[in-house]
Amino acid sequence: MHIAQTRLSIATAPREIKEITAEVARWTERQRISVGLLTLYIPHTSAPLLIQENASPDVRRDLDAFLPRIVPENVAPYRHHDEGPDDMPAHIKSALTQTQLSIPVTDGRLQQGIFPLEHRASPHCRALILTLVGEEEEPARRSGERHCSG
Amino acid sequence: MHIAQTRLSIATAPREIKEITAEVARWTERQRISVGLLTLYIPHTSAPLLIQENASPDVRRDLDAFLPRIVPENVAPYRHHDEGPDDMPAHIKSALTQTQLSIPVTDGRLQQGIFPLEHRASPHCRALILTLVGEEEEPARRSGERHCSG
Amino acid sequence: MHIAQTRLSIATAPREIKEITAEVARWTERQRISVGLLTLYIPHTSAPLLIQENASPDVRRDLDAFLPRIVPENVAPYRHHDEGPDDMPAHIKSALTQTQLSIPVTDGRLQQGIFPLEHRASPHCRALILTLVGEEEEPARRSGERHCSG
Repeated sequence: MHIAQTRLSIATAPREIKEITAEVARWTERQRISVGLLTLYIPHTSAPLLIQENASPDVRRDLDAFLPRIVPENVAPYRHHDEGPDDMPAHIKSALTQTQLSIPVTDGRLQQGIFPLEHRASPHCRALILTLVGEEEEPARRSGERHCSG
Repeated sequence: MHIAQTRLSIATAPREIKEITAEVARWTERQRISVGLLTLYIPHTSAPLLIQENASPDVRRDLDAFLPRIVPENVAPYRHHDEGPDDMPAHIKSALTQTQLSIPVTDGRLQQGIFPLEHRASPHCRALILTLVGEEEEPARRSGERHCSG
Repeated sequence: MHIAQTRLSIATAPREIKEITAEVARWTERQRISVGLLTLYIPHTSAPLLIQENASPDVRRDLDAFLPRIVPENVAPYRHHDEGPDDMPAHIKSALTQTQLSIPVTDGRLQQGIFPLEHRASPHCRALILTLVGEEEEPARRSGERHCSG
């Protein structure tokens, strides 16, 4: 068993949902872990992670349009608005989505596309900490896969 | 330390909240990990996981009734509706709930009931990837438990 | 690679958002893991975890005020109200936030403040299970950090 850890810095445009799959996959593959678990962690409470289909940009746009409908972006109901009217809504959206994700690595590869969701109105430099735990060799004890029947 | 990984396939009925605790617990116990961490991952963005009490089916029904109240199921506000009017609402519900969960294993047993939440209107075959990391023997360094006082 | 696990008990006041960073950090540092991953798990479905800034208490108050706006606290729409009108709303808030979190440990230290979100109207004794996986020594294979440019 091995553990590897790194910190990436990602420049995000305002409210951009930025795809970072390629960068994360490249680092992961360099660690030569065959079977493992990659944990992504964003040490910011106003830029949660979002795992979604990377096929359709419409999915991203619809998600981006949905969140302000349930989390209003105005100063009125909030006490905390030190960094502007988008500050507290960003914290709430973070609490409703995710700041951490653990994704399986199988045959040396990640199982899914990942992109962070940028909830602030201004551009930011976001940190992303990757921690990978796993085996270099395929474990012999790996059990057989099962499929849906009928 | 060991790692074990498998893929289960689960047939879900439309909008079914399907209990999969027994299947997951059976695989986990076969790995003979005494102290560890089991990570469940659903590589679909329209069928998140949900950990809830397995006591009351009313809890499941109420959850199922709540989500459409905040995530409307109609084509109007969404750009993405390639797979029908329940497609984009399922993605949004996924973003608001969870697609991955890590549950402690103590004395060889899982700590909680698990079931996936099926957000689509039609039946699906869902994959679930299990990754278990842990020790076969109880570690000597395990520290004493603490309890609430007063 | 090592694994360590413990169970903390936390007394929470009604709807209190209780900071538990100091207790969690103290246990983590005692394990002498240099690089690792700490997973916090609350085996209750009505007291999810919340990672937020520990700077401003206004952030916590605003979050606490926001959730009842989208999750109404009355018996009317729910079937499940065995433990009172705040029972089912607490389950829904749990499903919308998080019950588990994995936080990186770097140079023997946790990367973020943590506090559980108490969703019930009455005081409770909450369990919190900590599982730490990691290496005592810094791995040589740790790769260089990258920073935002421009």
